[in-house]
Amino acid sequence: MRIALLGLGTVGNAFLESLRQNREHVEMRAEGPIEIVKALVLHPERHRGEAGLITTRPADILNDPEVDIVVEVMGGCDPARAYIEAALRGGKSVVTANKEVLANHGAALFDAQAASNRDFLFEASVGAGIPVIRSIKIGLSGNRIDQVTGILNGTTNFILTRMERYGQSYEDALAEAQRAGYAEADPRADVEGTDAARKAAVLASIAFASRVTEADVVREGITRVEPRDIALGRSFGWTLKPIAVAREVGGRVFVRTHPAFLSEDHPLSGVGGIYNAVLVHAVPLGEAMFYGPGAGGPSTASAVLGDVVEAARNLRLGGRTVGCTCYRELPVAGEEEGRSAFYLRLDVRDEPGVLGSLASIMGESGVSLRTVRQAEPRGATAELVLVTHPAEERSFKRAVLRLTSLGTVQAMSQPIRIEEAAT
Amino acid sequence: MRIALLGLGTVGNAFLESLRQNREHVEMRAEGPIEIVKALVLHPERHRGEAGLITTRPADILNDPEVDIVVEVMGGCDPARAYIEAALRGGKSVVTANKEVLANHGAALFDAQAASNRDFLFEASVGAGIPVIRSIKIGLSGNRIDQVTGILNGTTNFILTRMERYGQSYEDALAEAQRAGYAEADPRADVEGTDAARKAAVLASIAFASRVTEADVVREGITRVEPRDIALGRSFGWTLKPIAVAREVGGRVFVRTHPAFLSEDHPLSGVGGIYNAVLVHAVPLGEAMFYGPGAGGPSTASAVLGDVVEAARNLRLGGRTVGCTCYRELPVAGEEEGRSAFYLRLDVRDEPGVLGSLASIMGESGVSLRTVRQAEPRGATAELVLVTHPAEERSFKRAVLRLTSLGTVQAMSQPIRIEEAAT
Repeated sequence: MRIALLGLGTVGNAFLESLRQNREHVEMRAEGPIEIVKALVLHPERHRGEAGLITTRPADILNDPEVDIVVEVMGGCDPARAYIEAALRGGKSVVTANKEVLANHGAALFDAQAASNRDFLFEASVGAGIPVIRSIKIGLSGNRIDQVTGILNGTTNFILTRMERYGQSYEDALAEAQRAGYAEADPRADVEGTDAARKAAVLASIAFASRVTEADVVREGITRVEPRDIALGRSFGWTLKPIAVAREVGGRVFVRTHPAFLSEDHPLSGVGGIYNAVLVHAVPLGEAMFYGPGAGGPSTASAVLGDVVEAARNLRLGGRTVGCTCYRELPVAGEEEGRSAFYLRLDVRDEPGVLGSLASIMGESGVSLRTVRQAEPRGATAELVLVTHPAEERSFKRAVLRLTSLGTVQAMSQPIRIEEAAT
Repeated sequence: MRIALLGLGTVGNAFLESLRQNREHVEMRAEGPIEIVKALVLHPERHRGEAGLITTRPADILNDPEVDIVVEVMGGCDPARAYIEAALRGGKSVVTANKEVLANHGAALFDAQAASNRDFLFEASVGAGIPVIRSIKIGLSGNRIDQVTGILNGTTNFILTRMERYGQSYEDALAEAQRAGYAEADPRADVEGTDAARKAAVLASIAFASRVTEADVVREGITRVEPRDIALGRSFGWTLKPIAVAREVGGRVFVRTHPAFLSEDHPLSGVGGIYNAVLVHAVPLGEAMFYGPGAGGPSTASAVLGDVVEAARNLRLGGRTVGCTCYRELPVAGEEEGRSAFYLRLDVRDEPGVLGSLASIMGESGVSLRTVRQAEPRGATAELVLVTHPAEERSFKRAVLRLTSLGTVQAMSQPIRIEEAAT
């Protein structure tokens, strides 16, 4: 089997290194030799160690009938989408780690795959080396999946874990993540929830057999979380995690990424640092969780190698792995739909009747309060914490809007959803 | 695709039920209809609801050229082994949930599979519905696996969880497990570690690409564990779990099942009740964990259905899933080999020099003590707890033997190994 790489950055190099180290294992399971023949790069001068593989012309790979499997590890939509489609239409199997192109152009890519009758595999696109895509597509294929809850972004999990453990501010924890190489210089795709939204779109599409795209995912970042909220959450027995939730309820699909308080018995509550995990609730299985390093070259290379083994086996022996699974067309719910319990912290003027007016606004909006906690006033200001029972998103947002306009409310935290463990 | 069942007990019935409920999902992924045509049972009068499927003659299934896939859910080695071999040699794909036959006759079964060029799949044999076999065989096929640590037996995990939470005795917790249907009337295969040893043999064979059989696994049960040991472990920050450990060290394979104290940061420490989990340490991946309900009809049926989907796809499209992966022949270490840290509780006569003589025996045996804790004497007896640094199994056992013969030692707990989290 002749393999060509599109891209030779962190993941591409880790892939080459892992293949060198574990060649015997890989080739035994692939039922024959695996040869790397080419690698497309932008800057050949940076890859002198791999000079024999390097090309700067995509056609050298895409039009070469000797290339059996194309491994796309360049990232981004353009030109990755065009290259993947060209490779599939040229009769090559394709392995990708690219969640962005999947979450935005999945339908077109699977059309190309179906026409080619080759494999299009993407285990590395979600949770890096955690084998969650294959597990859902094949291992759980006899199940009806109700809900998938994941910690899908290692950067934000690292930041919130630092804030919780050391009381750091969001800004300090972000700087720490950048120094450690876990966050980009421009961290927006991570901290605003876009990266997690792409992964959630891929997972939800497979879990519910119905296409969900990046644009369908309601997202909320972690940029407004304060250490005070994390500390208050701790006092309720909760831990704050950056989660993605995908649910199918009554024939509608709900997909969101946001920070959430998890109770200590929630299976995801112990997943810290840069680790990722995916919790699946399915019938007949029940609840299953997959956990591991969700980012980084070696972990991603592990998943890419597994896909290459599968693609190579199928080319040698015949057969094809499950391709597009989106045979249903379920509507995706919008931002205002759905229900959740919420936490909200307010600084209010310490004067008689404030709590009553807040409670009235909640009640009039159809939001029922579970707990109200008031701290000792500091000067003229009192801190109030409201925890609601599960409420309509729409109703809660309406209530928050009304609270904002109250003269007695001086400041308000980011509202934070509360996720209960399944019973 | 025509499917026949060997056995129609808890798992077989759950399989039929799950297929009925999720037929659309299953058939979409299997790329066509799945039909159940026959079921072999011993007592047809107990299966009137499935009268159209029932047969008592194995040949009706094994010799029927119309049967494409045989699902073996009868359990035990005899006659399951002969039926599986006959089905494979007759050109049928086989799906089994039977860890006992795999751990004892795996080599013969894979020989039959290799000759037939059909699939032989066994995801349900370890961890029931947790898709760990496929994940290790395919998803992690680019990795070199160093260690697999699992909680593989739900019955003993349930018993130890009860003992820890409610201070119950082993006997009471076992009775509770029997009432709840989690333990058999004859619980020996679970509580003496045999069930876990079978699963560990299957996992180790795949992880290290070298055959490990049931007889190779060193096992120790939980029958001598006392609530006092669990309470003392808690005071050290540990939780007691029934684990299976498989390691490859220096070209040798070590496989054991035994209770072990885990520190609170160990990924398996939170796995309670009847849940199972498998923790894999691999290069390049790092550490990954798979968690879920490791027993019961519905969970097992989930895994069997996933395998049936894969077998059906391969029969329709060509292709074959990875079969035998044991292409190496690594020696398996014996009971006396290996190293571990140990916990040991002793009741000793409260007289001068006792601690000194215990410590001398440990030191002379080559066992270095990490902690010694002495409780207030009750009457003439004092409780001593010894915690060792990692020591040779052989040395520790020699030391225990010498302690047993000391006149001052009145009673001794089951020695319990301590497993550290990977760093």
